[in-house]
Amino acid sequence: MEISTEKTRIGFIGLGIMGHSMAGHLLDAGFSLHLYNRTKSKADDLVERGAVWEDRISDLAARSDIIITIVGDPKDVEKIYLGPSGILENAGQGSMAVEMTTSDPNLAQTLFDKGLEKGIQVLDAPVSGGDLGARNATLSIMVGGEKKTFEEALPVLEIMGKNIVYQGKAGAGQHTKMANQISIAAAMVALCEAMAYVSRAGLDPETVLTCISKGAAGSWSMDNLGPRIIKGDFAPGFSIKHFIKDMGIALESGKTFDLDMPGLDLALSMYRKMAEKGLGEDGTQGLYKLYESKE
Amino acid sequence: MEISTEKTRIGFIGLGIMGHSMAGHLLDAGFSLHLYNRTKSKADDLVERGAVWEDRISDLAARSDIIITIVGDPKDVEKIYLGPSGILENAGQGSMAVEMTTSDPNLAQTLFDKGLEKGIQVLDAPVSGGDLGARNATLSIMVGGEKKTFEEALPVLEIMGKNIVYQGKAGAGQHTKMANQISIAAAMVALCEAMAYVSRAGLDPETVLTCISKGAAGSWSMDNLGPRIIKGDFAPGFSIKHFIKDMGIALESGKTFDLDMPGLDLALSMYRKMAEKGLGEDGTQGLYKLYESKE
Repeated sequence: MEISTEKTRIGFIGLGIMGHSMAGHLLDAGFSLHLYNRTKSKADDLVERGAVWEDRISDLAARSDIIITIVGDPKDVEKIYLGPSGILENAGQGSMAVEMTTSDPNLAQTLFDKGLEKGIQVLDAPVSGGDLGARNATLSIMVGGEKKTFEEALPVLEIMGKNIVYQGKAGAGQHTKMANQISIAAAMVALCEAMAYVSRAGLDPETVLTCISKGAAGSWSMDNLGPRIIKGDFAPGFSIKHFIKDMGIALESGKTFDLDMPGLDLALSMYRKMAEKGLGEDGTQGLYKLYESKE
Repeated sequence: MEISTEKTRIGFIGLGIMGHSMAGHLLDAGFSLHLYNRTKSKADDLVERGAVWEDRISDLAARSDIIITIVGDPKDVEKIYLGPSGILENAGQGSMAVEMTTSDPNLAQTLFDKGLEKGIQVLDAPVSGGDLGARNATLSIMVGGEKKTFEEALPVLEIMGKNIVYQGKAGAGQHTKMANQISIAAAMVALCEAMAYVSRAGLDPETVLTCISKGAAGSWSMDNLGPRIIKGDFAPGFSIKHFIKDMGIALESGKTFDLDMPGLDLALSMYRKMAEKGLGEDGTQGLYKLYESKE
């Protein structure tokens, strides 16, 4: 497939915080954009700017050359892709689907296989970089599927992200995203308990971070979330409830290759405790609160 | 105390990999340097370069204006500072001791108090940056004690390090170092299990790191130890046995303020398992091996 803003019609499903910004960039780039979302009102401003609303996923699929999806969780992905009214049953032969939800690597493989049967190329292409990355089109995008399909999709992906890396066969994008989330999980525990230690020891946390963030303890989390913890700012860059979802997928995926991940286990159990306390809408740095309250 | 290379005599105890480099820098800077070490031969080259060997800690203490110590663990620190032949009983009134071992914050407080009784100013000033930092005089130094003493000692500390930060009263330097090690502990678990996941999922680890190290999962450990894990290089930048010592101190210190640190607990128990397997001389990135071997 050759991409051009004149000829290529893009279908976009999922207008959450991330998807809405991403769809906006595609519209700005001049593509003909067909939209579907569970809550129709979230498409209103995009439709005003020229996008076409579709009442049915099946219609959207039939009228698009590339279908981009970014929805809530693997169950949502199954719902929009599979079944008689789903994407794979209704998209035209030779079309392409780019599934950008953070989702199950095995499901990504299933969609790829089923797509192949129908003549539809499917990529798994989850992102990192959060709402800011989506807004500024600086998302990292980790892509699995056929390399040729990746290369064809690249001009479209480059409108939404910056660090776009082909990771291998179907599922490899999702696996990479899982590795990303696993890297963050126990590291957030480490950061939050170090900050709690600093507080209990009566140190000045800013002065401590000035010193330790430049060495072997340094991390993106320390640089970006450490200062928020100090200010008591627990607003979500990335919310606990979404992180719990991702960690659950990673844990299940690890089980399929018989891999124990005790750090991930620990982080997930601690974050679940937070969600039980009604703190699931906090940002991931909110884990700090668990160390403040003695049960 | 006013520091000058002409008048100030420095005593240095502890010529391990770190201490040997640090003492060398002080000698190069032109100070009169008195040395003591458990193994005398490690002082040989420094003595050839002009340092003075002392057979007894008591003599070294009596003949030095500033006594710098960097030894193995808190027990060693107690041994050289306390008792009739120790530093505090034998150093002159108005002298200064800079204790740079990673050690117990409460012991640091004890040394400070006992020093005060004898008219000896004691700083706790542990370092981070490893043997490379010591060799290149780029150590981070985290300092606790009297601010005035810190300011007096600064010209000497600047010969050994770069990022030198006053953290507060006696013990604050050690507490800061503990916060540093706590930040690293569970984060190493996170990194190693993410790398294990990548391997089991059949991804190319270099390609994965290219993508995820630039975002929210990024850290000093990922940048510096991730590539070593990929190469199978488990040589120590910082050894597991030393890390176990530090984590043990941090855990005990946390207990004194009733702080549970489950991430630290987990990391410590995993690293102890490695030491039991005879892998204590490996670098901390060796934790990766635990994920390779199923028990």
